[in-house]
Amino acid sequence: VLNPVAIVEAKRDGGELDPADLRAFLEGYLEGTVEEPQVSAFLMAVYFRGMSAGELDALVDVMLHSGAVLDLAHLPAARVDKHSTGGVGDKVSLPLAPLVAEAGLFVPMMSGRGLGHTGGTLDKLEAIPGFRTDLTLPRFVEVLEAEGTAMIGQTTEIAPLDRRLYALRSLTATVPSIPLIAASILSKKLAEGLNALVLDVKMGSGAFLPDPEEARSLARTMVGLGEARGVGVVARMTAMDRPLGATVGNALEVAESVACLRGEGPADLREVVLALAGEMLALGRVAPDPEAGAQKARALLDSGAPLERFRRMVEAQGGDPRVVDDPGRLPAAPVVHEVRAARSGQVTRVEPRALGVGVVELGGGRVRSSDRVDPSVGLDALVAPGASVSQGDLLARIHARSEPDAQRMARVVEGAISMDGESAAGQPAGGEPATLLPLLGERVTRQGG
Amino acid sequence: VLNPVAIVEAKRDGGELDPADLRAFLEGYLEGTVEEPQVSAFLMAVYFRGMSAGELDALVDVMLHSGAVLDLAHLPAARVDKHSTGGVGDKVSLPLAPLVAEAGLFVPMMSGRGLGHTGGTLDKLEAIPGFRTDLTLPRFVEVLEAEGTAMIGQTTEIAPLDRRLYALRSLTATVPSIPLIAASILSKKLAEGLNALVLDVKMGSGAFLPDPEEARSLARTMVGLGEARGVGVVARMTAMDRPLGATVGNALEVAESVACLRGEGPADLREVVLALAGEMLALGRVAPDPEAGAQKARALLDSGAPLERFRRMVEAQGGDPRVVDDPGRLPAAPVVHEVRAARSGQVTRVEPRALGVGVVELGGGRVRSSDRVDPSVGLDALVAPGASVSQGDLLARIHARSEPDAQRMARVVEGAISMDGESAAGQPAGGEPATLLPLLGERVTRQGG
Repeated sequence: VLNPVAIVEAKRDGGELDPADLRAFLEGYLEGTVEEPQVSAFLMAVYFRGMSAGELDALVDVMLHSGAVLDLAHLPAARVDKHSTGGVGDKVSLPLAPLVAEAGLFVPMMSGRGLGHTGGTLDKLEAIPGFRTDLTLPRFVEVLEAEGTAMIGQTTEIAPLDRRLYALRSLTATVPSIPLIAASILSKKLAEGLNALVLDVKMGSGAFLPDPEEARSLARTMVGLGEARGVGVVARMTAMDRPLGATVGNALEVAESVACLRGEGPADLREVVLALAGEMLALGRVAPDPEAGAQKARALLDSGAPLERFRRMVEAQGGDPRVVDDPGRLPAAPVVHEVRAARSGQVTRVEPRALGVGVVELGGGRVRSSDRVDPSVGLDALVAPGASVSQGDLLARIHARSEPDAQRMARVVEGAISMDGESAAGQPAGGEPATLLPLLGERVTRQGG
Repeated sequence: VLNPVAIVEAKRDGGELDPADLRAFLEGYLEGTVEEPQVSAFLMAVYFRGMSAGELDALVDVMLHSGAVLDLAHLPAARVDKHSTGGVGDKVSLPLAPLVAEAGLFVPMMSGRGLGHTGGTLDKLEAIPGFRTDLTLPRFVEVLEAEGTAMIGQTTEIAPLDRRLYALRSLTATVPSIPLIAASILSKKLAEGLNALVLDVKMGSGAFLPDPEEARSLARTMVGLGEARGVGVVARMTAMDRPLGATVGNALEVAESVACLRGEGPADLREVVLALAGEMLALGRVAPDPEAGAQKARALLDSGAPLERFRRMVEAQGGDPRVVDDPGRLPAAPVVHEVRAARSGQVTRVEPRALGVGVVELGGGRVRSSDRVDPSVGLDALVAPGASVSQGDLLARIHARSEPDAQRMARVVEGAISMDGESAAGQPAGGEPATLLPLLGERVTRQGG
């Protein structure tokens, strides 16, 4: 007979649990014999003590099998997905999935919604009029079979234990625990029936884990956990000390994603998309290595075929495919306000977190998970660090629901953008020009490099 | 507006909470706006991070005022109580309370039940036929006014928040946290309307906190907390590396307490009773210092007056006062089994924890708080460490409900008693004769000495 108190006590004291005991504890929670306060205390003890590889594997296994697991073995090619730890302006999934599908792989993508200062893929997709992210699992598989990719939310059938634990973690200040984060991501992704997974681990002030050492630790934990479960996992660290691309906000990010699929759009977005595509093509064995994969992806992107695939996926999921040719069909905000440079100089920093919070305040994100999102609001034409601007040049365009909203956001934008010598708002910024993180940072693989 | 997650987070990160915020968090729990999982995670965070003096004071204050607080200011002398952290054979309260009342002070004692290997005062008192420990608060005050002491259980009116938090701690493996223990004890004792409190902090293997450093830390925490709330607190460390006295088990301990009140009984029990009485008399200002107080207590004890006071209190609380003259009226077990020395030698150790657990298994204690206790079972005539015994001498007498119970307990007793050279069971014990803790250890007072 399991004694739940003894399990909490052992974790509290830093002991390593027998995976069978941890499994019984978690199954007891699902069945109601282990009480919610016990799981809450356990989560806090994990926050302090961490988890061993064996414990983590048991946690992922119980979470995964608490719900439906897709069997996609009948598909004629490998299933490969990408997960990002989340950032500001991170719309990578939208161009990436059809691009990788175009290379012959299957990308069964279950995504999340935005919460806090970061956006979510589902919110961006739902900016497309008619787009349904709530397909049934059978319909999801149909679209996947036909178009090579499909994009939905985590249904209630997938990993219900993860859903319950996540709700409890939100309540108990135990969200930022590396093993709990890793297990949560992995259990949901493994339910997609994947062969391999690429992780985009964001570093820097706009990231979920701003500390690069913590971000690296998450990458290593997930790579180890994936390998233990027979799924190839490669993590790529990417920069989130500035927004990715020139847009933040759901409809505006869809438009930028379509531009990327046309071979246009900002260089940083294109570079991250191609690098992650290269990893996925290599993991899916349609390229010998990530570099060759990225080269193949570049050629495919420039062919225009991934854009057509994106159009077909949008249509298959109920969305208006004409947005691909005419972004004017996306929801537009009534007020557009331009923020211009008060003087000439070089842009040294663009603070992503402040801008992400600003867009949430415009109505484009969530404070509570029940909040409704306005797809039309946000920023575009956002300047990037390193740019030289002349007095009067555009620094960003604000899309808002009202003039007062736009005015408030203009203050946020001015505060978030620093120029050499002084900030855009006129206060001396002090010190040297900020050093930026490399856009593409280290790779974390099983071999450690 | 209070954000409970932010409170848990701040404690998790080792920050010091504003007492007003902690107060709001706890009051939110009482009112239902702070959820049980959040309090559970908070308790585990406290386990790891501890609590500041200001936080502790707020915790005690909210617990105390969550229920009734006795106002005993009308009594013509100081109210002084004693609390023990619990041990095996610890029947000190029974002779101590009437002794201190005899010196002119009031001892309004609310006690607990035994749980785990240690006994509880309420269970001992209830071994007296008819004795009621569930008096209403008005009746409790009446007995106190008339006899100078009254002894009841913690009613549901007293510190209900402590009761809820204690239940949650039992569930979540957060019982052994010094600040939480200290706050729990203090909040209940302060509800008695005390002027001063003496703590008997047990040290050694049979104690609730076996580690002397932890026991000392609890003593210091409680002394500081008491002073902050205007109640004089002195802690005395006493030995619990062997049982106190020669009996373990409820009715047998009542008989030993009556013997102590007659000026008889084991020397160690008498010594602890007199030392703690000395502290209480000094705190209550009826003796200039603890030594003079102990001397005064010795004279009172030898006068026989405290025994008469005990008899009156028993009668006032519904108990049969004739047990004082005839312990044969206490419940007696059907089977009495003697354990005798297999050879001659000196007793080096008598393990209290094993004996405490053994008496619980005889039916004399609780594993679960809902268990019923058999008052008749236990041990008496228990040998003490340091005694020289000849082959065939009595080591202990077992009182059991059945022969098999007695046989099992005989193995426990043999295993718990070590003699020089080898254990009573015949296995070599190895090593030097064990060093015993001093019966009366250090005093912890506000001045630190």
